[in-house]
Amino acid sequence: MASPFPSRVSVFEVAPRDGLQNESVVIPTDQKIALIDRLSDAGFEDIEVGSFVSPKWIPQLADTREVLAGITRRPGVRYWTLVPNPRGFQDAVAEGAECIAVFMSSSETHNRKNVNRSIAQSLEELSQIIADGRARGMRVRAYLSTVFGCPDEGFVDPERVLSLSKSLLEAGAHQISLGDTIGVANPVQVKDMVARLTAVVPLERIALHFHDTRGTALANVLAGLEAGVTVFDASLGGVGGCPYAPGAAGNLAMEDLLFMLKGMGIETGVDLERAAQTGVFLSELIGRKLPGRYHNYHIGQSRRQAEKAELAVPPQSGG
Amino acid sequence: MASPFPSRVSVFEVAPRDGLQNESVVIPTDQKIALIDRLSDAGFEDIEVGSFVSPKWIPQLADTREVLAGITRRPGVRYWTLVPNPRGFQDAVAEGAECIAVFMSSSETHNRKNVNRSIAQSLEELSQIIADGRARGMRVRAYLSTVFGCPDEGFVDPERVLSLSKSLLEAGAHQISLGDTIGVANPVQVKDMVARLTAVVPLERIALHFHDTRGTALANVLAGLEAGVTVFDASLGGVGGCPYAPGAAGNLAMEDLLFMLKGMGIETGVDLERAAQTGVFLSELIGRKLPGRYHNYHIGQSRRQAEKAELAVPPQSGG
Repeated sequence: MASPFPSRVSVFEVAPRDGLQNESVVIPTDQKIALIDRLSDAGFEDIEVGSFVSPKWIPQLADTREVLAGITRRPGVRYWTLVPNPRGFQDAVAEGAECIAVFMSSSETHNRKNVNRSIAQSLEELSQIIADGRARGMRVRAYLSTVFGCPDEGFVDPERVLSLSKSLLEAGAHQISLGDTIGVANPVQVKDMVARLTAVVPLERIALHFHDTRGTALANVLAGLEAGVTVFDASLGGVGGCPYAPGAAGNLAMEDLLFMLKGMGIETGVDLERAAQTGVFLSELIGRKLPGRYHNYHIGQSRRQAEKAELAVPPQSGG
Repeated sequence: MASPFPSRVSVFEVAPRDGLQNESVVIPTDQKIALIDRLSDAGFEDIEVGSFVSPKWIPQLADTREVLAGITRRPGVRYWTLVPNPRGFQDAVAEGAECIAVFMSSSETHNRKNVNRSIAQSLEELSQIIADGRARGMRVRAYLSTVFGCPDEGFVDPERVLSLSKSLLEAGAHQISLGDTIGVANPVQVKDMVARLTAVVPLERIALHFHDTRGTALANVLAGLEAGVTVFDASLGGVGGCPYAPGAAGNLAMEDLLFMLKGMGIETGVDLERAAQTGVFLSELIGRKLPGRYHNYHIGQSRRQAEKAELAVPPQSGG
């Protein structure tokens, strides 16, 4: 029987931007650079490194310019920056950014709360940015959030998701990343959404971005894999909590995703052990254990081995 | 297109036994009774309530007799007790237990470490207990652990799992629960194992018991559902850590399982909101937040709502 799964998938690492943006602690620039360089060393080929957003809004990402200038660029790695508006796009152009990402919601209320624009206004603005970016030879990714449910409106009409996805791709986006912003998606819904989408847009241009708020992210990835999707977003250690419930999980943890894919025989190009070590490095920067399951297992294993090694030391006879 | 999923599945709640056995804190008997009664009130029909094991081994479960005597038995609910050996079986008989569970490993090293017997010895002993239990009209469940990997041996031969499953069912067990004791299973392996098994044993007698040590438990449930399995074990809040890595997750969290099944339109008979509230009750008994994702979301939501309510109170003008 032929495997129903793709032999290789891309994992898109969002910890340095999406992850850190949702943490209260501000990481020093040189440590962010070290984090990103460790990620590219571990084999990640898509890393979201910062955002050209006003430092008044998101002080955690105020040093995106310095980060971009400081990292060691590894050939074949795409370093992505978020561009929230035309002003941010101008900054990205000035910095010579090659890969940019734009974002909007698929629910009216969430989009207004998030960017103070109607969906129609956002679509017009983003379409222009996408076109300008393409004209300059940039790669452009478009995030569509609240695809599987909205914190304000609840139900989100799949027809609107289809229509927005089509428009963003027609405007020139290379890829759309469909976000389960509040972590309510289930595998049936994921398969249904992907099946509807692939009737109007090419499968290879769809990425899935799941949140693990209710533990379902990896099951939703499996549903996405079964539907043929080959790009999945996640963050190291699951960094970046859920803004709607303090202490709850947000992003799917990258190590959990990598472990499952590896077990299924699906290639990613990323070294799980090095990724896990980088997750520990990140948790030390932030000052606490992150929510990822594999991350916590990895830390627990290290502690157990350290305890065993300590027990193996012969007791001192004196003192 | 017909749904590939069963319309209803059974969830088997193991928190009061398997969960608490792996926690260091000892819960007072009256609180255990309150926990079990809340579980049956929430709609759970299979609850593992204790173990007839020596209190020297597992002091957390020393009060199984008093727990069984104190709970309010709800019609239609099966209250299960673990029976580790013939002595435990005699205790179960003396207490009039109607539903018992036996257990063994599918890897030689783990079985020896766990129960100090070879697999052959365990199989002989359990077969006798199963036969005696059946002769007395009991329902008997058999746990087979380390099915997808062993902490000592690593690889476990699926042929041995098949052979042991077949033997335990032929001895009279109503159901076998296949345990991913260290949380290493992946969806491909799960589907392969279930497909092999159903060539020799009936599908409806297979239960799956996943651990979430590396975040894959719910994806493995999805794979099991797609393979037609209709019984899944989990524990409220994911109580019961992983004994091989301190601080890491063990059992799949019941609320996460219930949330996914509900979203997929699969009936369980359990009220998710009441289950989640009982998870909070359990975490208060244990004195810390449990690892379950939905559990932490639920607690975070409650905190956020409490903060909002506090902000809504007009500030005092004096004092």
